[in-house]
Amino acid sequence: MGAARPTKRSGPAARMRDIAPFHVMDVLARAAQLEAQGRRIIHMEVGEPDFPTAEPIVAAGQRALASGHTHYTPACGIQALREAIARHYGDRYGVEVAPERVVVTAGASGALLLIMGVLVNPGQSVLMADPGYPCNRHFVRVFEGRPVSIPAGPEVAYQLTADLIERYAEPETVAVMLASPSNPTGTMVAPEDLQGILRTLDARGLHLVADEIYQGLVYGGHATTALGLSGEAFVVNSFSKYFGMTGWRLGWLVGPEAFVRDVEKLAQNLFISPPTPAQHAALAAFEPDTLEILEERRRAFETRRDFLLAALRELGFSIPIEPAGAFYLYAGCERFTNDSQAFALDVLERAGVAFTPGLDFGRNEPERHVRFAYTTGLAELEEGVERLRRYLG
Amino acid sequence: MGAARPTKRSGPAARMRDIAPFHVMDVLARAAQLEAQGRRIIHMEVGEPDFPTAEPIVAAGQRALASGHTHYTPACGIQALREAIARHYGDRYGVEVAPERVVVTAGASGALLLIMGVLVNPGQSVLMADPGYPCNRHFVRVFEGRPVSIPAGPEVAYQLTADLIERYAEPETVAVMLASPSNPTGTMVAPEDLQGILRTLDARGLHLVADEIYQGLVYGGHATTALGLSGEAFVVNSFSKYFGMTGWRLGWLVGPEAFVRDVEKLAQNLFISPPTPAQHAALAAFEPDTLEILEERRRAFETRRDFLLAALRELGFSIPIEPAGAFYLYAGCERFTNDSQAFALDVLERAGVAFTPGLDFGRNEPERHVRFAYTTGLAELEEGVERLRRYLG
Repeated sequence: MGAARPTKRSGPAARMRDIAPFHVMDVLARAAQLEAQGRRIIHMEVGEPDFPTAEPIVAAGQRALASGHTHYTPACGIQALREAIARHYGDRYGVEVAPERVVVTAGASGALLLIMGVLVNPGQSVLMADPGYPCNRHFVRVFEGRPVSIPAGPEVAYQLTADLIERYAEPETVAVMLASPSNPTGTMVAPEDLQGILRTLDARGLHLVADEIYQGLVYGGHATTALGLSGEAFVVNSFSKYFGMTGWRLGWLVGPEAFVRDVEKLAQNLFISPPTPAQHAALAAFEPDTLEILEERRRAFETRRDFLLAALRELGFSIPIEPAGAFYLYAGCERFTNDSQAFALDVLERAGVAFTPGLDFGRNEPERHVRFAYTTGLAELEEGVERLRRYLG
Repeated sequence: MGAARPTKRSGPAARMRDIAPFHVMDVLARAAQLEAQGRRIIHMEVGEPDFPTAEPIVAAGQRALASGHTHYTPACGIQALREAIARHYGDRYGVEVAPERVVVTAGASGALLLIMGVLVNPGQSVLMADPGYPCNRHFVRVFEGRPVSIPAGPEVAYQLTADLIERYAEPETVAVMLASPSNPTGTMVAPEDLQGILRTLDARGLHLVADEIYQGLVYGGHATTALGLSGEAFVVNSFSKYFGMTGWRLGWLVGPEAFVRDVEKLAQNLFISPPTPAQHAALAAFEPDTLEILEERRRAFETRRDFLLAALRELGFSIPIEPAGAFYLYAGCERFTNDSQAFALDVLERAGVAFTPGLDFGRNEPERHVRFAYTTGLAELEEGVERLRRYLG
């Protein structure tokens, strides 16, 4: 037996063929090389706020560490944070949410993993808009579900509609994902459209998974939460974007009462608990002095959006729908190229401006689109636009 | 259409029927109630060190926050930490590991999720010892794999052997999990046994997933890492147990070179990155002054083990194999009960001592076993033993 001929081990599981890497990583890697050579790069590819975590949150994190808050917590998070999140829905949206329905997670990523794990059987499908956040389809795929990416162009503000859902729903469809505001387009689902969608979902017995992680970052209007219209929606949110806590890895979900126990079971087994220092730090996220800082930052994002939107349109990028939230502009580059990946790498190389090729957001004309993130200061954005002008001229 | 009759939404996915909650939570909940009534409870159920995170690690975490290390990192972790972990294998085990094979994860939980996601196709099986860490079978199940729990009693030190693997391996088996030291038994796989197992795995083309999260906590001997015997093993480790960073949620895996790119792809999509402040804090974990503190704690655990092992045996619990590591004693309670769950709740109620019923560790005679954790001070353990003595007498 000791002399048995070795058998070749299996390679990666089949699902890995469907899991795409982040294509922006090629841009990032090349940008880092150029920077190592002394080039200055304008970064408009980064999907996280440039602001550091607000001081009161950092201070709360430091106090938590000093107080020894370094042990596991309950799988659904510390009670004080679940209550603070529930209160936030009351304060900001006038929506009553029971703290027991709030599950604190390791980022919105953790929330999406738990929801798909609890909802999706092998072979069942989940509908989502294309373009969209690329990980969404992978969260479905890893559980052997079928993500159905529905092409959603400017005519529907890049969002699913009741009609599109009717057209694409199959007997095997179990849920529909919405993201409002959306990454990469920054567009939102209007409350009246959401009501129509909810009627369709009710009629067909489909679950709603609403990604609201950019909801604090809305300009010139008010965001509404799906929780205000449905007690049966799964709503995902995060401390990353509006609250500026990306690296802390903290988010949450609000689930229908009937599913919370299953979400908790899965969270116990897959995560044990969300990061403890981050949970204590996040308690400071809803304090008035923190919200004042965050609102100031929101206004800075709005100023950047106003500048960059006008400037990119003037350069010849097509941005048919004015994005109302998040910190992205999803721009058609058909006037300049029909290969957005090559275009992004060439602009980086020759003009020193980094942005994200469309391929990272789906298969709906990705080669004709790029995403600009205004996650850098106004002066940088101005310099970036000037460089683009010279490159394109 | 607005008047369409609503269709009932589907309930949880089928996999959720196979995901067990942590049964110890019933014990914990009742213990909390009793404490709220003023009772003092001796806790021997907790699977994490009672020590707070060591001061130099906390200080590094605070410095990281002060320096604004709150942004995303690469999905596999910051380079400095991957290098520090790789060096640790050289320093402690004399084993050379390329930093590129080290992937920093959200706890060992994150590592196990990534490994099973990358390895296991639906219907494929993974072999593991029963009793064992309950989440292991769930990490396989969530990806539609089949965990095969192999009864492993004292005659094999509660560990899989080459013979057992030969007996239980099927054509659909893709991997074998070992945990050394093991939770709940604290027993280890001897290097010569591991060599035999590796020969069997080679012959059959099976992957090894080696859980080494308790490896710093070994008493009266030296632990060896599977990485010293195989370049093709997946090894899981953690900053939680030996390094005392449970709540920070930080672990790592070392994978075979051919799989690291897939692990990275999956990590990008499912986690974005591991917690940033924790990563910077963990850089201090390998510093000499930290290791001095951790070694002192290891000796404290050893003293506790020596006391509790002798005391429980004297009380009539059967512990046939002396546990060489971790901080658990897996004790047969057949002299007192054939319902360990009822026994645990009754002891809690009447004697104020909390421990974990066997049901949390599998289906191999769980009703005849309980797990004691010596994650509380010696004085508490003595009091707990005295209470047990009175209860049993």
